[in-house]
Amino acid sequence: MDAIRSLLPFVLDYVTHQTVTDVGSTKLSITELVKNHPKRSHYVASHPMSGTEFSGPEAAIPGLFNKKVGIICDMALSSPKALETVTDLYMAMNMRLVFMSSKEHDLHTAYVSHISHLTSFALALTVLDKERNEKNILNLASGGFDSTVRLAASSADMWVPVFDQNRENVVEVMETYIDKMSQFKDLIKAGETDKVRDLIKKANIIQKTLKQNPWNQK
Amino acid sequence: MDAIRSLLPFVLDYVTHQTVTDVGSTKLSITELVKNHPKRSHYVASHPMSGTEFSGPEAAIPGLFNKKVGIICDMALSSPKALETVTDLYMAMNMRLVFMSSKEHDLHTAYVSHISHLTSFALALTVLDKERNEKNILNLASGGFDSTVRLAASSADMWVPVFDQNRENVVEVMETYIDKMSQFKDLIKAGETDKVRDLIKKANIIQKTLKQNPWNQK
Repeated sequence: MDAIRSLLPFVLDYVTHQTVTDVGSTKLSITELVKNHPKRSHYVASHPMSGTEFSGPEAAIPGLFNKKVGIICDMALSSPKALETVTDLYMAMNMRLVFMSSKEHDLHTAYVSHISHLTSFALALTVLDKERNEKNILNLASGGFDSTVRLAASSADMWVPVFDQNRENVVEVMETYIDKMSQFKDLIKAGETDKVRDLIKKANIIQKTLKQNPWNQK
Repeated sequence: MDAIRSLLPFVLDYVTHQTVTDVGSTKLSITELVKNHPKRSHYVASHPMSGTEFSGPEAAIPGLFNKKVGIICDMALSSPKALETVTDLYMAMNMRLVFMSSKEHDLHTAYVSHISHLTSFALALTVLDKERNEKNILNLASGGFDSTVRLAASSADMWVPVFDQNRENVVEVMETYIDKMSQFKDLIKAGETDKVRDLIKKANIIQKTLKQNPWNQK
């Protein structure tokens, strides 16, 4: 994200008829930067929501983009030709196109992507702290732990600028999340089993919601 | 867990030469309950660390126990014959046997299993809260979100008694976890990118630790 911010204005300076796009995980800090650039209409702000916990060219896997969401931001600011080039590219990879503003993008990704990484990092740090005192605690790690902690392998170089550039939304979702965890903790501590049950049953709804989305069906 | 606590003493009353075991997710509240039972040596406290987010007989899948950890607690309190029966059963399913006290079991599972479920429930509740206001936020859910929220489908009937019976350890790990999340949040809010980077790099170590465990290698 930092590299995009430093390079994009210079790349646009050299554009004649070409289309420029990016695949960065936050959008507002980029689109604000080039909003008055004379070649702004050659640029399409986009974000293919796809990837694993690994980074760099060697992390490529077949079908990485298949059926994944490709977000195009602020489409009115791009020329029809530039938009067509980028949407054709995404559709050729069988992606689902979604259009929204940069502002909406940054809010939504804070909730469905950025926070997932933060909860994984915090889980890893919690267990590693205990591991120092309790030998071999990780020998017991079972399937459930593996999947919730998977994203904790994600690259600091990639994520630090994302959290920083989307600071306001990320802090908001973290505050809500910490409230939910504290609520759980207080109820468990007080032995309020009926209320803990209510919270879990409410949380269960997420899976029904995800399954309703035809794009999530395997 | 509640059913085991109500049934186990009565089951042991009827034992003549048989072996009794259980597969409950907490151990101390059960083993304390039967510690003075005259047939205690016929009972083996065990916990196969295996399962998915689904419950009941219809959730069975082939190879569910293959290479998973089977914990046997307080082995000195079971007769050699009873121990042999249960360990033979677990080894026939290609499980890895680990021996520890009920007290250690409850501490370790709070860190590698119970907290993973709580972080998933809290993540689901956070997103569902926002979803009410922001239409279709979940349409953007990508691979990372799916895996961290997977356990949020887990059954309240199963987990409420686990959290309740392992209350002390679960509350301790939740407090550490909330501290880590708050630390992240404060650093992101303050724009302390170098310190956020340090935390992420520390969290990355978890994957190396998991990979070192030969039982986690695919």
